[in-house]
Amino acid sequence: MRVEELDETALLARVLPLMPTRALLGPGDDAALVAAPDGRVVATTDVLVELRDFRRDWSTGADVGWKAVAQNVADVAAMGATCTGLLLALGMPGDLEVAWVEDFARGVAQACAEFGAVVVGGDLSAASEIVVAVTALGDLAGAPPVLRSGARAGHVVAVAGTLGRSGAGLDLLQRGVLDGPADLLGAHRRPVPPVAAGPRARRAGASALMDVSDGLLRDAGRIAAASGVTLDLSTTSALGGWIADLLPAVGGRATELVLTGGEDHALLGCFPPDAGLPAPFAAVGVVRPAGPHPVLVDGRAWAGAGTGWDHFAQ
Amino acid sequence: MRVEELDETALLARVLPLMPTRALLGPGDDAALVAAPDGRVVATTDVLVELRDFRRDWSTGADVGWKAVAQNVADVAAMGATCTGLLLALGMPGDLEVAWVEDFARGVAQACAEFGAVVVGGDLSAASEIVVAVTALGDLAGAPPVLRSGARAGHVVAVAGTLGRSGAGLDLLQRGVLDGPADLLGAHRRPVPPVAAGPRARRAGASALMDVSDGLLRDAGRIAAASGVTLDLSTTSALGGWIADLLPAVGGRATELVLTGGEDHALLGCFPPDAGLPAPFAAVGVVRPAGPHPVLVDGRAWAGAGTGWDHFAQ
Repeated sequence: MRVEELDETALLARVLPLMPTRALLGPGDDAALVAAPDGRVVATTDVLVELRDFRRDWSTGADVGWKAVAQNVADVAAMGATCTGLLLALGMPGDLEVAWVEDFARGVAQACAEFGAVVVGGDLSAASEIVVAVTALGDLAGAPPVLRSGARAGHVVAVAGTLGRSGAGLDLLQRGVLDGPADLLGAHRRPVPPVAAGPRARRAGASALMDVSDGLLRDAGRIAAASGVTLDLSTTSALGGWIADLLPAVGGRATELVLTGGEDHALLGCFPPDAGLPAPFAAVGVVRPAGPHPVLVDGRAWAGAGTGWDHFAQ
Repeated sequence: MRVEELDETALLARVLPLMPTRALLGPGDDAALVAAPDGRVVATTDVLVELRDFRRDWSTGADVGWKAVAQNVADVAAMGATCTGLLLALGMPGDLEVAWVEDFARGVAQACAEFGAVVVGGDLSAASEIVVAVTALGDLAGAPPVLRSGARAGHVVAVAGTLGRSGAGLDLLQRGVLDGPADLLGAHRRPVPPVAAGPRARRAGASALMDVSDGLLRDAGRIAAASGVTLDLSTTSALGGWIADLLPAVGGRATELVLTGGEDHALLGCFPPDAGLPAPFAAVGVVRPAGPHPVLVDGRAWAGAGTGWDHFAQ
């Protein structure tokens, strides 16, 4: 059965029951009502577009649903907050199979279970290609958000999660390897941001925090710019371990992928030297005073291929 | 200049300054932070897709930006709430003129000024067609939300705003009349939902409230279904005045357009008989016990053309 054979009400009746929808007031009225216990709400929105951000022959509907949730809860975690609700806007062609939409909803539900999220509202619309726009809401438990602008010289640079695996998985898919190493393909199809590490970093006194979605060098550059510092990354840190892990699958591209591959949704944080790194953060470098380059790798500007993902320039 | 000639950062730098972005924390970090004074937040999301919801030869970029804001603040008002923040996700083809995006941002700003809203976050993405997904947040000032489910037999049915004008404007555009009556074309291009009437209806004790986006009959049917009642509409009420207003432009289609035309974003409310209608609500009918038809027109089931807008079935 295709989407155009159902009206919006009938399609909603099929997919809504597949997803967790607890809220003060969930889907079904003009708007939802979500608890914001401390009198503020964290809010972020992120879009996935077919053929730009996913391919239906590389990812199932459930993979796309998972990823749409994962990348948004990662942005909430990157403020030091926990997710309190998701709004899903889904545009899709009329000839899309309803089974794909149901599979998408199941992937959303699986990610909600993994990340402790619920769907509070949404919208369905016809479109030429599949477009998924997710808004995530979050709560900071009364604490200040962790911004990108608080890093200071002498602070430790650390990462929770892993880097390069999603990019390596994408690399395999682009080379036609659809059943390669499950951990790499899985990292691309279903990234698992370490969402609990966000509030933990906040409580540990993190001075800066962000979601690594566009590649470590590009996103580290954003913290450097916002904080007015240099981030000096070391490949003899945890980065070296992730590089070594990738060598069997991607050989000489391992270093580039760890430094510039996007969509792993690790958390990149900076911590005062006396803060102590909360699990699962691992040190990857140190913050230095601002210099000619916002980001250094082993003390030098990165001269390798790639600088990270940009939606329009690539 | 086309969008693909800029990277995302450069495009953001052009459009963000055009829009009001006050918030506890606005665009620029992983997420925004918005005040939710009473410890809850109203949240709704709605999508506009090129060629489905607008045409670039019928509406300017500013018109589309205005409408994207208007339809979302209308959903917030329909809960009895006021808008506290908007998140805008914009997907667009690389060959789109940057000037169109800037014009879109100006229309967003104009609507924000009209409706008292601000942009707190968003996302830009490449896509095959223009897709605008807006999430609106709102505050209820400590009061319960006005749902669709509280209408009871004997309550008055009332509308704030007008009906049929947007549909009549669309009708003109579809017949090639691009410079017809400004009020009708304007109603389609730049609907003006009576957002202040939402909180006013709540304070006046409205038993049900919703945004009329898909046509009066269809949306009245939703209140009827949620409340377990019948809404009996009268064409000798304010509806008759709106029908008469449309006669010169659309002749015999006037009644159908007032009853089934979408996108005016009027507010449809039900009020206990002793509540008194707050301005600018005008009575259009009465609530009756549930019967074989959820909505009646002058005591009978509607037998005319059209039942309202559905994204997939039309």
